[in-house]
Amino acid sequence: MIVTLCGGVGAARFLAGLVQVTDPSEITAIVNTGDDLVLHGLSISPDLDTVSYTLAGLNNTETGWGVTGETWRAMERLGALGGESWFALGDLDLATHLFRSQLLSRGLTLSEATDELRRAMGIGVRLLPMSNDPVATKVTSRQTGQELDFQEYFVRHHHAPRLSAIRFAGAMEATPGPDVLSSIASAERIVIAPSNPLVSLGPILAVPGIAEALIARRRHSVAISPIVAGAALKGPAADMLEDLGHEVSVLGVARLYAPYVATFIIDHQDAHHKAAIEALGMACTVTNTVMETNEIAVSLAKVTLEELS
Amino acid sequence: MIVTLCGGVGAARFLAGLVQVTDPSEITAIVNTGDDLVLHGLSISPDLDTVSYTLAGLNNTETGWGVTGETWRAMERLGALGGESWFALGDLDLATHLFRSQLLSRGLTLSEATDELRRAMGIGVRLLPMSNDPVATKVTSRQTGQELDFQEYFVRHHHAPRLSAIRFAGAMEATPGPDVLSSIASAERIVIAPSNPLVSLGPILAVPGIAEALIARRRHSVAISPIVAGAALKGPAADMLEDLGHEVSVLGVARLYAPYVATFIIDHQDAHHKAAIEALGMACTVTNTVMETNEIAVSLAKVTLEELS
Repeated sequence: MIVTLCGGVGAARFLAGLVQVTDPSEITAIVNTGDDLVLHGLSISPDLDTVSYTLAGLNNTETGWGVTGETWRAMERLGALGGESWFALGDLDLATHLFRSQLLSRGLTLSEATDELRRAMGIGVRLLPMSNDPVATKVTSRQTGQELDFQEYFVRHHHAPRLSAIRFAGAMEATPGPDVLSSIASAERIVIAPSNPLVSLGPILAVPGIAEALIARRRHSVAISPIVAGAALKGPAADMLEDLGHEVSVLGVARLYAPYVATFIIDHQDAHHKAAIEALGMACTVTNTVMETNEIAVSLAKVTLEELS
Repeated sequence: MIVTLCGGVGAARFLAGLVQVTDPSEITAIVNTGDDLVLHGLSISPDLDTVSYTLAGLNNTETGWGVTGETWRAMERLGALGGESWFALGDLDLATHLFRSQLLSRGLTLSEATDELRRAMGIGVRLLPMSNDPVATKVTSRQTGQELDFQEYFVRHHHAPRLSAIRFAGAMEATPGPDVLSSIASAERIVIAPSNPLVSLGPILAVPGIAEALIARRRHSVAISPIVAGAALKGPAADMLEDLGHEVSVLGVARLYAPYVATFIIDHQDAHHKAAIEALGMACTVTNTVMETNEIAVSLAKVTLEELS
């Protein structure tokens, strides 16, 4: 069994490659739920949805998020009514949230609801929310000092605010979701996907028990850098690293992951950091990590598995 | 000010006529919320929506419910996912529920949310939910003895089950919505719209204080029969009356409304019941009540106002 720790888009792309080189039923994805929100009464899990849509082949490759062939009838009407429409909910995407909300209101846990959705979408990879307890990523704007819910920061304010703090409300009281710790303990290989280390992996690591479980398996674990040539491939990871006092480079990320993984995978563009990463006590593999094509995603998945075998 | 007590479709049609013969800002509609439900996390108020869509000119005249030009992208996907889709939520209709849920989650009362929606839809008639407290109409199936939520009975089971009981859960603890009692007290005229007396008017009358307020204004009040020639124009009113032991005729309805109204309006087809209705201590007006055309709706509104002047 291969366990992958996942945020959204980058992790989804990595998984889309991974399922082409290994049996999907042998893959477990532990997914960040710190971005989850209840909006207009609907329970929304953005990272679970991104991973699911991608693995189901439903992802919109033009926008990089949402569902292919999406329409916006409900959202357009909501906007016309004067309702809040900053968080775009396509008509097809709405169905996912309606279904999840329906299942949760019937008393299912998020894990159970996620498994129902997974099966409904025909996804072979096992999807585990990091926790069934609410964990809410909050960020503090450096400029205003105001604390924002993650999606307010990320979507409503287009991740423009620079930050002075990130916290994971509820994390200390949360327990890992069912099978999260046992999957980590029994995995042949553990992969930290190329996701934002602070707000995608951060919440997962903040759930008591998960970091310890990962540290115990460090020898079998690898991480792929989401930073390439000093920049994030997507999203605010670079700004966030800087804001929180980390070096904005593969080395900065390697330092964050050194306790958890024995191997760190970086892009050719960052080959000059190899020695410094190795000096952290990690092996460092240099390959193509920018998954612009399916071939590169497949190749990256292969290299990742090789590094672990 | 004219106050109308309203269920869904019949009341909406009556109001659509009424606004053509009197200034909409002079009309207050007190609307049943016993059919309201929280579905998939969304707060849905079917009677408020039917009245709103009709007054906004958005009602689907082909189906008799929902929004004109409706599409079903979210619902079709929800069905494909295997989610519950027995309660049809069109994409445009969803926007209403998203907006209402958004407003309620911000802490607005149902009255306040209803007023926001009313203004967003450009409706001049004042819309008052009967109560801001949850009141849930429940029916007991005669055959199975099982108690069903109203929408389960009405929509999911197409109001096929015959009933042994109807109750309004929460009604005893509910208080009338803001301005409900004062509107009734100060109205020049009060009209009980042609709605189901048991499950549209029943919940309104069950909220403590409303029946008393209506009785005090009986001399200024009129009801329009929803039963014509022993049948309901729409929905299960006839079956329900029979199930609950009432006569399935204008006379059966007149008996229910006798405490509240001084005048009862029936269709020409029921003219032979006039004397029996008058024997209940009510005036009885015979006119066209089947609102098949706008002309008839306008004429019925005129007759209703004349009866009250």
